[in-house]
Amino acid sequence: MRTLALPGRRAASRVPSVRYDRRPGPGGKLRVPRYTLVMKHLRQELWFDVPDRRGYLNITAEVRDAVARSDVRHGLCLVNAMHITASVYINDDEPGLIRDYDDWLEKLAPFNAGSVPSSSIGGYHHNRTGEDNADAHLKRQVMGREVVVAITDGELDFGPWEQIFYAEFDGRRKKRALIKIIGE
Amino acid sequence: MRTLALPGRRAASRVPSVRYDRRPGPGGKLRVPRYTLVMKHLRQELWFDVPDRRGYLNITAEVRDAVARSDVRHGLCLVNAMHITASVYINDDEPGLIRDYDDWLEKLAPFNAGSVPSSSIGGYHHNRTGEDNADAHLKRQVMGREVVVAITDGELDFGPWEQIFYAEFDGRRKKRALIKIIGE
Amino acid sequence: MRTLALPGRRAASRVPSVRYDRRPGPGGKLRVPRYTLVMKHLRQELWFDVPDRRGYLNITAEVRDAVARSDVRHGLCLVNAMHITASVYINDDEPGLIRDYDDWLEKLAPFNAGSVPSSSIGGYHHNRTGEDNADAHLKRQVMGREVVVAITDGELDFGPWEQIFYAEFDGRRKKRALIKIIGE
Repeated sequence: MRTLALPGRRAASRVPSVRYDRRPGPGGKLRVPRYTLVMKHLRQELWFDVPDRRGYLNITAEVRDAVARSDVRHGLCLVNAMHITASVYINDDEPGLIRDYDDWLEKLAPFNAGSVPSSSIGGYHHNRTGEDNADAHLKRQVMGREVVVAITDGELDFGPWEQIFYAEFDGRRKKRALIKIIGE
Repeated sequence: MRTLALPGRRAASRVPSVRYDRRPGPGGKLRVPRYTLVMKHLRQELWFDVPDRRGYLNITAEVRDAVARSDVRHGLCLVNAMHITASVYINDDEPGLIRDYDDWLEKLAPFNAGSVPSSSIGGYHHNRTGEDNADAHLKRQVMGREVVVAITDGELDFGPWEQIFYAEFDGRRKKRALIKIIGE
Repeated sequence: MRTLALPGRRAASRVPSVRYDRRPGPGGKLRVPRYTLVMKHLRQELWFDVPDRRGYLNITAEVRDAVARSDVRHGLCLVNAMHITASVYINDDEPGLIRDYDDWLEKLAPFNAGSVPSSSIGGYHHNRTGEDNADAHLKRQVMGREVVVAITDGELDFGPWEQIFYAEFDGRRKKRALIKIIGE
């Protein structure tokens, strides 16, 4: 946080994005008004409660709203799953494709509540801890934890078909994604 | 965008990276010169027209040029595919490895224009829409949409073998990648 | 780097995060004090020498230390492998899960020092160059090169189980990851 002395209080009305800081400076005295020049930033959580084990939610509108509220014209927008059995990814909002992703991920990392990898029934070491979601931790690595999107002229700088999805691989409970925006 | 009142016009010649803003402030009056302190940023598109369905292009030189033009000394450089059937990734520029990637991706998510997943010929739900590129949407998730690279002392802060690639999985048409740089 | 003329030297004691720049301006004269308003940033390398071919190291504490030293309250923290046969990813620090990842990656992209893909023994084109690590280049794409983590109120803005790992797929030599932090 950068703090900068300016000539007078009056200037504040001309610099609405410069925050006025009333805390005393070193020595406890505050002889001139102090302003803080800050990069803009915004943090927002999105909460989900997917009723099934797996689900794919288009969260583009929510991210777009956050970008608008951030007042950032040029910067970066990070969107990440806050849980390690879910993904945030960018792809097409086409129901057939989403079924294809789901089938494909299940083939690459099948659900199996078992915990004996060497036996004929297969399984995962992780599920020996009492969990049944090892497959979800694997699926999430294929689809990714996060996306970083450019912000240009106050908008998500997207190609024609880009849509942001939250992919749930171990649902039926409350989980979150994080939006963090920085820029000017 | 942060706007800051400064003592006089003369100072401007000493602060080349501070933009002089002649727009009137609230109330329509402009009694002191106004300067805008901005984080540096640069946006650039790279266009491709890969003649085959799949192709792997080393775009490191183009990204390096953009970093140089941005005049950013310390910051972050985002490079992402703007299309959802292509990837931007970082790995080695070695032709054998690129063949290995291509063979491996084709094994993980084979091209199949068919659209009947349950039949003996296989296929993808997405291709029922008239598309034939479902495999490209899947391959792109393995290789990733984007990379974020540190900029240090005005250069891409790379390890010894890092090279940035645009990977096309559904070419034979014009497509783009985006470079967005922010920093100081 | 943005340079800004301020009314007097005295102000400097109130603005500790604004750097005082004694270099003369254009023309070689320095008539007013000059200050440089900078975004905060920090760069740090982490070095590893994993004794086996593959290994998974929790580097969360090291990244947390870097965030604290950066003095950034709000920003982004990039952590990336600087080598192309290693990953940085975020997931659970549970030994069973790490074994599951290792087994799964070996199934998706098995180690094979061979270099004749078409023969019955399999192999990789890349390994014709004298390398034996083609599988490592493939595994790294599944797990990813980098993570970008939000910094909020001076801390990694993490969900309940997120931990940052360096995954080595071709060890037994010194290799590095990069931490780059920007923000305010």
